[in-house]
Amino acid sequence: MDIITADSLPAAIAATAAEVEAALDVLLPEEPGPEAPLFAAMRYATLGGGKRLRAFLVMQSAGLFAVDRQCAVRVAAAVEMLHAYSLIHDDLPAMDNDDLRRGKPSTHRAFDEATAILAGDALQTRAFEVLADPDTHSSAEARCELVAALSHASGARGMCGGQMIDMATEGQALGAEDVARLQALKTGRLIQFSAEAGAILGRAGAHQRSLLAAYGRDVGAAFQIADDVLDAVGSAEEIGKTAGKDAAAGKATLVAVWGLDRARAQAELLAEQAAGHLDGFGDQAGLLRALAAHVVRRRN
Amino acid sequence: MDIITADSLPAAIAATAAEVEAALDVLLPEEPGPEAPLFAAMRYATLGGGKRLRAFLVMQSAGLFAVDRQCAVRVAAAVEMLHAYSLIHDDLPAMDNDDLRRGKPSTHRAFDEATAILAGDALQTRAFEVLADPDTHSSAEARCELVAALSHASGARGMCGGQMIDMATEGQALGAEDVARLQALKTGRLIQFSAEAGAILGRAGAHQRSLLAAYGRDVGAAFQIADDVLDAVGSAEEIGKTAGKDAAAGKATLVAVWGLDRARAQAELLAEQAAGHLDGFGDQAGLLRALAAHVVRRRN
Repeated sequence: MDIITADSLPAAIAATAAEVEAALDVLLPEEPGPEAPLFAAMRYATLGGGKRLRAFLVMQSAGLFAVDRQCAVRVAAAVEMLHAYSLIHDDLPAMDNDDLRRGKPSTHRAFDEATAILAGDALQTRAFEVLADPDTHSSAEARCELVAALSHASGARGMCGGQMIDMATEGQALGAEDVARLQALKTGRLIQFSAEAGAILGRAGAHQRSLLAAYGRDVGAAFQIADDVLDAVGSAEEIGKTAGKDAAAGKATLVAVWGLDRARAQAELLAEQAAGHLDGFGDQAGLLRALAAHVVRRRN
Repeated sequence: MDIITADSLPAAIAATAAEVEAALDVLLPEEPGPEAPLFAAMRYATLGGGKRLRAFLVMQSAGLFAVDRQCAVRVAAAVEMLHAYSLIHDDLPAMDNDDLRRGKPSTHRAFDEATAILAGDALQTRAFEVLADPDTHSSAEARCELVAALSHASGARGMCGGQMIDMATEGQALGAEDVARLQALKTGRLIQFSAEAGAILGRAGAHQRSLLAAYGRDVGAAFQIADDVLDAVGSAEEIGKTAGKDAAAGKATLVAVWGLDRARAQAELLAEQAAGHLDGFGDQAGLLRALAAHVVRRRN
């Protein structure tokens, strides 16, 4: 079973990417009038690119609890909107000042800074609007839990806090523990939310939800180390953004602390640990297991 | 009764401001560590200033339905967080480039641009987190309605859309209808939400909710025209921000379209119309009626 699902992982990821892309296309329509650039920038930043790792985690974790696919895909779309907003703002001149994102001009380069700031703002708003909509779940309790969990994952005690730490410590030599905390906040919490989302949608018990949270935490950490490894060794062509940028910017990464070999080994370890949390979920978790192995071996 | 409540309006506004300030102080704690500047900037932008008009509307509309004050003040705090985020981002160099806000340096001047962008982002997130929390209302349905209504009011079809139109039409001669639409989106929708929030918290029927929405819409429009009048005639000392800035920036205002006298008359008319929507609410709506009259006569 595992061999079959590992083989079918790329196709499954591609299928989810297409599904969430179609949902995003509907949830983020174009709009005429003087506000048109805002709507266009929201689409530009969100549609047509990205690995859709977070969406895939939502869809797979929802699959464990037989959640209605139309509901799950809305949550997957909301997470991708939240993620897209964070990328727009991270790329701004005042932040990481990155001209390239997913192999094309970043949003403030394709539009302008003001439109990019607003598009990020409105994408965050839209993510919560989608989650609170009755179409996302028949239970208001479940919808509120989604809003609570996503806001916690992405706010000052999550993603935004991680980005603040990243900027505040730029150029400083951090220890492994501090780097791990930074990354857990900056990218880990949103990945963890994505893995947990299925349990919230499926009204699962606290134990199952915490297992999926633990899986998400470990996969997120493994993913981030793999990302740092790619940044250190990859080419701009392979990863679709400027390579070697972390080192040039004096960013703290576990590759800088440990070196490439130990970082790679640690990522492998985390991936195995992630898969271990899924032992009780049986064959249905095959693609989540395969994903854990995949994130540390991917080339882009 | 009306005379008494009109007299007691300033004291009531001050009491609400103190109450929401205390709630914000708890909901936005300081935090040690490298993320400290983010938490400090969130507090800087939100605490210690502002008219708290939106908070007052929430508390007064909640009072019409005997909503628990501890619940209502959380919604009032959430609206003020959302409002503070919008001010931080509007003041950025790429947007309105304003160095002064509420009589003190704007957030990107007191901190830096990156911290200001992040503080705005995290304040938006925190607003939705507070609304989704069970402490805000025992009914998850009510909490979801609050999230849905606030996100609708503040997103691309509300506040963010209004700001986009404001930027996209800068320097253009707009007609009265276009200016009114711009202002309804940019500032009106959030004021409308504030007036509606009490009906959502009180699980009121659609009719009462729509009356309060209409009141909020008219008060918001009157408030904005009064604001434009103040900008045109006021001094920086009186309004706590740079005066005459709208005209200098070529911003579209109804003062520019109509001239001062007609703009003032229109604001008065809207204020009367706003009060008219409250006819069915009796004496308990006295302060809301007084507020409608007050917003067009205020000096700052």
